[in-house]
Amino acid sequence: MTWRELRFELTTRYAARNMAKSPISAEDDFIARHFKPLAMAPGALGLTDDAAVYTPPPGHDLVLTKDALVAGVHFFADDPAERIARKALRVNLSDLAAKGAMPAGFLLALALPPETGEEWVAAFARGLGDDSAHYGCPLFGGDTVRTPGPVTISITAFGLVPSGHMVRRAGAQPGDRVMVSGTIGDAALALRVRRDGLAVSDAARAHLRERYQLPRPRTALTVAVREHASAAMDVSDGLAGDFAKLCHVSGVSARVTLADVPLSDAARTVIAQDEALLETACTGGDDYEIVCTVPPVKLAAFRAAAASARVPVSEIGEIVAGEGAPQFLGADGQPVAWQRLSFSHL
Amino acid sequence: MTWRELRFELTTRYAARNMAKSPISAEDDFIARHFKPLAMAPGALGLTDDAAVYTPPPGHDLVLTKDALVAGVHFFADDPAERIARKALRVNLSDLAAKGAMPAGFLLALALPPETGEEWVAAFARGLGDDSAHYGCPLFGGDTVRTPGPVTISITAFGLVPSGHMVRRAGAQPGDRVMVSGTIGDAALALRVRRDGLAVSDAARAHLRERYQLPRPRTALTVAVREHASAAMDVSDGLAGDFAKLCHVSGVSARVTLADVPLSDAARTVIAQDEALLETACTGGDDYEIVCTVPPVKLAAFRAAAASARVPVSEIGEIVAGEGAPQFLGADGQPVAWQRLSFSHL
Repeated sequence: MTWRELRFELTTRYAARNMAKSPISAEDDFIARHFKPLAMAPGALGLTDDAAVYTPPPGHDLVLTKDALVAGVHFFADDPAERIARKALRVNLSDLAAKGAMPAGFLLALALPPETGEEWVAAFARGLGDDSAHYGCPLFGGDTVRTPGPVTISITAFGLVPSGHMVRRAGAQPGDRVMVSGTIGDAALALRVRRDGLAVSDAARAHLRERYQLPRPRTALTVAVREHASAAMDVSDGLAGDFAKLCHVSGVSARVTLADVPLSDAARTVIAQDEALLETACTGGDDYEIVCTVPPVKLAAFRAAAASARVPVSEIGEIVAGEGAPQFLGADGQPVAWQRLSFSHL
Repeated sequence: MTWRELRFELTTRYAARNMAKSPISAEDDFIARHFKPLAMAPGALGLTDDAAVYTPPPGHDLVLTKDALVAGVHFFADDPAERIARKALRVNLSDLAAKGAMPAGFLLALALPPETGEEWVAAFARGLGDDSAHYGCPLFGGDTVRTPGPVTISITAFGLVPSGHMVRRAGAQPGDRVMVSGTIGDAALALRVRRDGLAVSDAARAHLRERYQLPRPRTALTVAVREHASAAMDVSDGLAGDFAKLCHVSGVSARVTLADVPLSDAARTVIAQDEALLETACTGGDDYEIVCTVPPVKLAAFRAAAASARVPVSEIGEIVAGEGAPQFLGADGQPVAWQRLSFSHL
């Protein structure tokens, strides 16, 4: 079949997708059946309308975020469907948490290749439903379409903050402490272990893979961030690059002590084999942790709130005046020179 | 390159996309430069944050909708990029209009193949910007990612209705008149003309193609629908199938007079060659018109409001009690039997 024929075939199938008893129609029914249980909010109208309706509570702002994930780019096509779905939702929930917003709902666009089976969709919906319930973030609607390409997922999530209280990337002040949740670099190291076949224990490999497949959005830290942080963002594209963006829009610089960047035991094991992998950990991305800046007077309260939310947080540095990129200081107290250009050919 | 290598290569490029001076980073900058002008709302924060913030005006509900479009499925990959962008936004605006909601903003997820050039992105952003300004629907944020597949676009649009006044698909009552905006079938016939090389005038071909590439969301009809319609939806998957859904959730049936379904001159020319193409017109989709039901006592006011909004509307039938699919009556007054199963193999 030529590409042109394929286009027509697909266009026709799309146009025909509501025809009674056609395979596409049957599949539409199947999809509706599987996703309807996730549409618990009355405003989702059971996914039977063109759109959803949401009544924002008075005194609140909406926080809106949207991420796209493509098989072969943001996840492996053979990752379990449940986990792919949960990751797709969680990367959005991570954005909301970093902004101090509690999840309120989401919309899903799902593009599926023709060979995707019902079992895959059922597993995807099951994973999504588990997280949707766990995080109190119901499905409001969306769109399911065919693609000749890889599975592609786009989720738009929305959350709520008391009016005027979204935490921005801008706002960090000299003297503020730089705090980061959880551990950094696990997901990036998981990819390196997989690609390069590094010798690590099964337990370490499993831990890193878990962190790659299933981010842990720091929803529990939402209120602590909102009440105490001067600026915050989620770490999705690498701590070094992301934190540089926060400093840039805040009009400040920072000094970070590399030895204070929190690493998991598994990450330490891998980095012990090759010190250069510390750079991978700090620049590789897919962490979905929160990096935020906290004024010294609020530091104790932030730590207490994080402890009570059972989210580990680490102090890794301090905001300083200036406009340059944040410096990551090595054991000798000197700034490390990341090999960024070569890293892009990793 | 094997698929596995490609996956790693792409994953790595993604992970590395914020590395200074890498090609991906340069392109990220380029994309930000082109889309930033569309992010006119203060809450978009110039696209420099993890998320956007939106303060809903008191006394209003949010109406949320999300559509996905894939090259080769919902548009032709060689359609002009400006038009692809405008179509992607307009199909969402059409949903909002049918719900009685005025546009307030949108988020964009854009997945681009590696070969997509800067010129294409610039044209895409230009088209999107034109419509964003025209319809008063600013960009609030989104995500741009790589894909080994076709260009894939997902837009989430949100709009506003006075609280409790979203127009639903449910609500049609026996006796209500069935009204439809504009003309039906142009886009579906455009595809048939293109595929089958039907002999039509250049003017007719151009009209139909225009309607396929560039839907006209009936934003101007929003208030008329909200004030006078008992139920409404946008016609995106074919008038017959879509209207059947409206009747189903309203718990009613309908009688539609086929001769009253509004057709463009171009559509009439094509159908004159083959009467069977009337079925294509009524079931083919991509119309992005509004079908709504209006109680008889409100009909004159609805017509007046539509006229004053300069949107042509046609009465095509009447809601009747019962649960069966709406009947489309032919010239002999008998229900037409759509050949749906064969149509799915069109």
